[in-house]
Amino acid sequence: MNTNKHRYSSDQPSAEAYLIASRRCELMNLQHFLQMGKLIQSISNLVHGLQRERGASNIFLGSNGEKFGPERKAIAEESAQLRFVFEQALAEIHVELTTHSVSSHLLAHIASALHGLESLPELRKRIETRALKVPEATELFCTLIHRLIAVVFEAADTAVDPSLARLLVAMVHLMNGKEFCGQERATGSAGFSGGGFDTALIQRMTHLVEAQERCFEVVLGFADEQSCQQLQSLLANDREKEIGRLRQFGCSVGRYKPLDSELADQWFALMSERMDELKKVEESVETSFHGRCVERFAEARSSLAHHETLIASLDQPEDATQPLLVLCESGSNGESRASEAWSSGGIGQQSGRSIFDLVQEQSRRLQQMSEDLQGAKEALEDRRTQEKAVLLLMNHRNITNDEAHRVLRKLAMDQGKKLPEVARALVSMADLLK
Amino acid sequence: MNTNKHRYSSDQPSAEAYLIASRRCELMNLQHFLQMGKLIQSISNLVHGLQRERGASNIFLGSNGEKFGPERKAIAEESAQLRFVFEQALAEIHVELTTHSVSSHLLAHIASALHGLESLPELRKRIETRALKVPEATELFCTLIHRLIAVVFEAADTAVDPSLARLLVAMVHLMNGKEFCGQERATGSAGFSGGGFDTALIQRMTHLVEAQERCFEVVLGFADEQSCQQLQSLLANDREKEIGRLRQFGCSVGRYKPLDSELADQWFALMSERMDELKKVEESVETSFHGRCVERFAEARSSLAHHETLIASLDQPEDATQPLLVLCESGSNGESRASEAWSSGGIGQQSGRSIFDLVQEQSRRLQQMSEDLQGAKEALEDRRTQEKAVLLLMNHRNITNDEAHRVLRKLAMDQGKKLPEVARALVSMADLLK
Repeated sequence: MNTNKHRYSSDQPSAEAYLIASRRCELMNLQHFLQMGKLIQSISNLVHGLQRERGASNIFLGSNGEKFGPERKAIAEESAQLRFVFEQALAEIHVELTTHSVSSHLLAHIASALHGLESLPELRKRIETRALKVPEATELFCTLIHRLIAVVFEAADTAVDPSLARLLVAMVHLMNGKEFCGQERATGSAGFSGGGFDTALIQRMTHLVEAQERCFEVVLGFADEQSCQQLQSLLANDREKEIGRLRQFGCSVGRYKPLDSELADQWFALMSERMDELKKVEESVETSFHGRCVERFAEARSSLAHHETLIASLDQPEDATQPLLVLCESGSNGESRASEAWSSGGIGQQSGRSIFDLVQEQSRRLQQMSEDLQGAKEALEDRRTQEKAVLLLMNHRNITNDEAHRVLRKLAMDQGKKLPEVARALVSMADLLK
Repeated sequence: MNTNKHRYSSDQPSAEAYLIASRRCELMNLQHFLQMGKLIQSISNLVHGLQRERGASNIFLGSNGEKFGPERKAIAEESAQLRFVFEQALAEIHVELTTHSVSSHLLAHIASALHGLESLPELRKRIETRALKVPEATELFCTLIHRLIAVVFEAADTAVDPSLARLLVAMVHLMNGKEFCGQERATGSAGFSGGGFDTALIQRMTHLVEAQERCFEVVLGFADEQSCQQLQSLLANDREKEIGRLRQFGCSVGRYKPLDSELADQWFALMSERMDELKKVEESVETSFHGRCVERFAEARSSLAHHETLIASLDQPEDATQPLLVLCESGSNGESRASEAWSSGGIGQQSGRSIFDLVQEQSRRLQQMSEDLQGAKEALEDRRTQEKAVLLLMNHRNITNDEAHRVLRKLAMDQGKKLPEVARALVSMADLLK
C-alpha cells in the first residue's frame, strides 16, 4: 500500500514533493531578505549621506561659495564612498536578483536609482563651479533620494513573511519621514538665511511638518518595540521644543520682518542633529530586521528539515505511527468534516492521514500569514494611493505638490475622514472618469 | 564620456542591466503562464470528469446499484485518464514550479489537490461496493473538486499581466459557477428522486442558484467578448426556462407531495447538458487565454530585443541620436521638472537622457499594469473574503455553510450593501475582536 515511497525526491509530481517545494519557497524568500537587508542598510546610509551633502551644498551655494567649502567637499567624498558601498551590496545579489527575479517593479526601481546615481559626479561639478542655484540643486538631490527610497518601498512589497513586511513598512516610512525632515531643514534654511518667510515657504513648512507626523505615526504602528521607544523619546526631547519654537518664530515674526541670519545656523544645526537621531532609529529597525530574518530563516530551515524527515519516515510504514502524533493539530476548518469522512471509511490509512495533516497545516499557515500580511500591504497601498491622489490633483488643477497635499488634507478635514480614505475616493473617482 | 559601454551585459550593476532584467522578469512570468495554461486546461477537464463521475456515482448509489452501473464505470475510467493527463501536465512544469517558485501558496494548493487525488481509487472502490451513502460520496467529490479549483485560483493570483489576470479571474469564477451548478444538480436529484423537497433542500437550492448567479456576473465582467456572448446565450436559452420551471415546481409542489421520479431523470439530463455547455464556455476562455499568452509573450520578447539593441546602440555615441527619437514619450509625471533640470544643464548628455527615457517608460508601464491589475486582484480578494466570512459565521454561530451564506445575503440586503462589502466588514470586525 505504500505508494509514496521516495516520491517527494523524484521528478514525479506528488503531494509530498509540492509540500516540500512550498516550504522551500518560503525559505528562499527568507534567504532573499537576509541579503536584501544589507542592500537596504546601504541605501539608508547612502540616503543619509546624500541628505548631508544636500544640506552642505545648499549652504555653500547660498553663501556664494563662502561657507562650507571644505566641509561640502569632505561630505561629498563620504557620500561617493557610500554610493560605492551600495553598488557593492547590489553586486553581491546582482545575479540572484536578475535571474530568479521576484519583481519587475523592484528591478525597474533599482535601474532608476542607479541611473540617477550615474549623474552624481556631474551634479557635484556643477555645484562646485556654482553653476546651479539652491532650489535646482535641492530638487536634483530630492529626486535621487526619492528613487533610492522607492527601492526600499518595492522591496517591502515583495516580503511574504508578515513580521519582516511590517519592519520594512516601518523602515520605508522612517526614511520618508527623515526625508521630509531634510526638506523642512532646507525650507527653513531658505527662510532664515533669506531673511523671511513668505506664504509659499510657510505653506511648505506646514505640509512638511504634517507629512513627517503622518510617517512617524505609521512607523510607531509597525516598528519593533525598541525602535518605537527610541523614536518616541526622540519626538519628546528638548530639541523638539527648540525646533518647534524656531518654526513658530520663523512663520510668525519671519512673515513681517527680516530675521537674524544666525538663526539659520541654529536651525540647520538642530535639524541636522534631529536627522542624525532619526538615522539611529533607522539603524535600530535594521538591526531588528536582520535579527528577525536570521530567526525566521533558522525556523524555516529546521521546519523544512523536520518535514523532510517526517515524509521520509512515512515511507517506512512500520515506524510511521509514532512521530505523527505530534502533528495532529486541532482547529476547525471547512474541510474537517470531509477529512473525517476520508479517515473513517478506511481510505485514510495512517500515512495518508498524516500527509493530509501536513498539507492542511501548511495551507492554514500560509492563509494565516496572508492575513497577517494584510496590514503591512495596506500601509504600502495607502502611501501609493496618496502619492497618486497628489499627482492627480497637481495635473488636474495645475497646482504644486504642496498645494495638492493641502487640498487633500482639507478634503479629509472637511469630510471628517482619514487621509488615505479621501485619497482612495479621489483615485477611484478619477478611474471612473477615465 | 561613454561609461555605459557593455555594462548591461556584465555582472556589474548598472541602470541598463536592471532595466533589461526588469523586462526579462516580465517575459519569464509570461512564459510561466504559457505553461500554466496547459495545466489549467487539464484541471478544467479533470474537474468536469469528476463532476460527471459524481453525478453517475450518485445515481448508482441512490438506486442501490440498479441504475448507471456500466455508465459510472466508463465515466470513472475516463476521469482516471483525465487525472493522468493532469499529472502529466504538472510533470512538464514540475521542475520549473518547484525551483523558481512564484508562490508557496500555489505549491501548497497543488500538494493538497494531489493528495486528494491519491485517494480517488479507494473512493471508487467504496462506491462500487456501495460502502458509501450519496451525501458522503458527494462531499468527498466536492472536496476534491474544490481543491483543484483552488489551484486555478492561486495561479490567477500570481498573474502579473492584467489581461491574463482578468481571464484567469473569469476562469476561476466560471469553474466555481459550474461547480455550484453541479451541486444544484445533486441537490435537485436528491429532491426529485427522494420524492420531495424539505426546507433544508429548498434553502440549499436557493443558495446554489444565487451563488451561480454571482459567479457568472463576475465572469461577464472579466471574460473576453466571445466567451461572454457564449455565456449570455447559454443563460438566455430555452433549457434555462425549463430548468427554472423544474426548480420552481420542486420547491413548491415538492414541498407538500411526493414527486414523479421521472422528473429526477429529466432534471439530471437538463442540468448535465447545462454543465456541458458551461464547459464549452470554459474552453472558450482557455482558448482566448492561450491566444493572449502567445500574443503578450511575443510582444514582450520583441520589446526586450528592441531594448537590448537600443541600449547596445547607446554604446556608440556616433549613431545614438537617430533611433532614440522614437522613444521620447510625452506625458506629464512627477519627475518631469527634475528631468528637465538634468538635461538642461549639460548633465544629461544624449545617451544619459535616453536611458532615462527608457527607465521612465518602464516604471510608467509597470505602474499602469499594477493599476490595471487591481480590478482582477479585488475580484479574487472578494471571493477570499466571502469564503472567510462564511467560515467565520459557521464557526461563530455553529451553523451550516448554506445558513451562513443566507445570513450573509440577508445582512447585505438589510443594509442595502453589496455582498463583498458586508463580508469585508464582518471579517475586519472579527479581526478587531481577536
